[in-house]
Amino acid sequence: MAACELSLRHPRGETRMWFGEGALAAAASALGDWVEGRRLFVVTDPRVRALHGVSIAGLAARAGEACWLEVPEGEAAKSVAEAERLWRRMLEAGGKRDSRLLALGGGSVGDLGGFVAGCFLRGVEHALLPTTLLAQLDAAIGGKTAIDLPGGKNSVGLFRHPAFVVGEATWLGTLPRPERAAGLFEAIKAGFVLDTALFERIESDLDALLEGDAQALGQVVGAAAAAKVRIVEEDPEEAGSRQLLNFGHTLAHALESLGGYRGLRHGEAVGYGMLFATRLGEEHGLPAEDAGRLRELVRRVGLPETRLPSTQEILETMRRDKKAREDGLRWVVPECLGRGRVEVLPVSTVRRALEAWRRSLGRDDPSPRV
Amino acid sequence: MAACELSLRHPRGETRMWFGEGALAAAASALGDWVEGRRLFVVTDPRVRALHGVSIAGLAARAGEACWLEVPEGEAAKSVAEAERLWRRMLEAGGKRDSRLLALGGGSVGDLGGFVAGCFLRGVEHALLPTTLLAQLDAAIGGKTAIDLPGGKNSVGLFRHPAFVVGEATWLGTLPRPERAAGLFEAIKAGFVLDTALFERIESDLDALLEGDAQALGQVVGAAAAAKVRIVEEDPEEAGSRQLLNFGHTLAHALESLGGYRGLRHGEAVGYGMLFATRLGEEHGLPAEDAGRLRELVRRVGLPETRLPSTQEILETMRRDKKAREDGLRWVVPECLGRGRVEVLPVSTVRRALEAWRRSLGRDDPSPRV
Repeated sequence: MAACELSLRHPRGETRMWFGEGALAAAASALGDWVEGRRLFVVTDPRVRALHGVSIAGLAARAGEACWLEVPEGEAAKSVAEAERLWRRMLEAGGKRDSRLLALGGGSVGDLGGFVAGCFLRGVEHALLPTTLLAQLDAAIGGKTAIDLPGGKNSVGLFRHPAFVVGEATWLGTLPRPERAAGLFEAIKAGFVLDTALFERIESDLDALLEGDAQALGQVVGAAAAAKVRIVEEDPEEAGSRQLLNFGHTLAHALESLGGYRGLRHGEAVGYGMLFATRLGEEHGLPAEDAGRLRELVRRVGLPETRLPSTQEILETMRRDKKAREDGLRWVVPECLGRGRVEVLPVSTVRRALEAWRRSLGRDDPSPRV
Repeated sequence: MAACELSLRHPRGETRMWFGEGALAAAASALGDWVEGRRLFVVTDPRVRALHGVSIAGLAARAGEACWLEVPEGEAAKSVAEAERLWRRMLEAGGKRDSRLLALGGGSVGDLGGFVAGCFLRGVEHALLPTTLLAQLDAAIGGKTAIDLPGGKNSVGLFRHPAFVVGEATWLGTLPRPERAAGLFEAIKAGFVLDTALFERIESDLDALLEGDAQALGQVVGAAAAAKVRIVEEDPEEAGSRQLLNFGHTLAHALESLGGYRGLRHGEAVGYGMLFATRLGEEHGLPAEDAGRLRELVRRVGLPETRLPSTQEILETMRRDKKAREDGLRWVVPECLGRGRVEVLPVSTVRRALEAWRRSLGRDDPSPRV
């Protein structure tokens, strides 16, 4: 299967993207020209470097000089201290405004790498080479970069688009199954509020997707990426329609925060968040049949058990969310399969719905949880 | 005298600016609407707060909540550690994407404040209220924000324009005379390569300017700001003509760096840098009469004595400058009064010119130095 090529136009230019099997080969010439003769900084973590470092050796050889910057795995990379360490090393290594930065890894590596590139000397160009399903179909697209503060995930960052995104589908085969499952929740999210065909493709190909079939994964990644590109072009800084991509995220952020980011994976928290937002949707007119299809698909992917925090804890955490506004909590409410809308709901409404959802768990909603 | 109002259009919107006597009063209504009912963070230093905090008390009262964030005076504020401290305090204080940040102080407070605002929650709006001459006529205009790394001044930062700039001329009366003199070098710089009328105004009003006459200062600030606005609109990210504003800065950055930022003031280093760049200009056709007018004006403002580092030290420091390119050093070469051009000169040319300038010091160039 040929790789699919996309382009995202944004206020400062354009991001060229390749997804699917053979994406890296398809991108090789453009990426090579981009690094040709320049200082190249490669941000990655030790595990990803061991698995996939070799696949960019040819690219690194075209740079004038390649400097590998290893960071800790996962969310631990996204600290002010790590950002400062990278900036200092880049400065010592003679980094200039025309140097390049390439982030090879999952969402955390991309979030940190994009932020570091965006601030170094007031901005050097960067490219993202996402190696996880979640990063390929969601995190790498749309120009969000960030690091964390204590008590504030992603609370320091930039909107800054990469020059290139390359999501090679064969890389996804090395992921543990639960990582692929977690990533699929973000694809289901995009399908359910934006793109019926994407949702139906996941329904029909789910077994192959969970098994790590590169062709099936590449096609879903390409379709989810295309849906996200459309909406980011419409609303680059999340002032309007882009907020639809937060379907399931209002509750998810609270669950992740209350779990200290050591409990559920992000995608899994989004899975729970979609179940709750679907219940909210039913109260606002979402047809029962569509709600049922979402629940069934979430059940088939499978959510791990979790202890749900108290309603009061959840509400207080939501109020501190960076997307909260003074007037209430912002929700993406699904209207029907393929369509959603953003609503600010009073805290009292959310409290009532959370209590009702909690009682229904184990009855309507199919996932194991306590 | 009425305040002068300017507007700078940039790729993401517009910055409204007021300069001169009465600028703060003229801006009060727009600034008040901007903070109305929101969380307002005021970044300042203790000395500026004591001198001018009272003048924004009315504005702070219109905010939903005002939180003062004091930082150390001068360059010491521009560290990663200070930025992180402010981000944490803003998060703890409940800062949201629709919060506002206002930087009241000199160039360092504005550089740090703009950077902190630009990264907090991927960007909150900010306003600059510059209180020094240098900051009013140069640093506050054009969207450059930055903090320092060890060995790399301004090496982490963003291009991000403020929503408002308010340069109240009466604030300039409280500055020590050497601060005003240092600020004037940046105005002379803009006049000499961009705006003959500005240069001639400084020539004719110099005594009043040095004495701190608010009306004379307000007029020069307004004219210098207008010249800078024109060129920033032409070239927002310094890819072309905006580089002209670096007249005198290639040498200045090296002198500051070699002095550990504890020797010459920035403006004074620019003064020396202009003297040298003028000599380079004469070798490339700058008329002797125009060169003489620059030297005479620099002499009248007055440069402090300094020990000039060795030619080798200067050249090595320049090569590490973030604006250096692989192919040589970038210079703004004056062509005649009111016009300059950017040239990449080979290191050997610069070395020869530096040696010649060094020999000429105390003979042609009028300033005291060793």
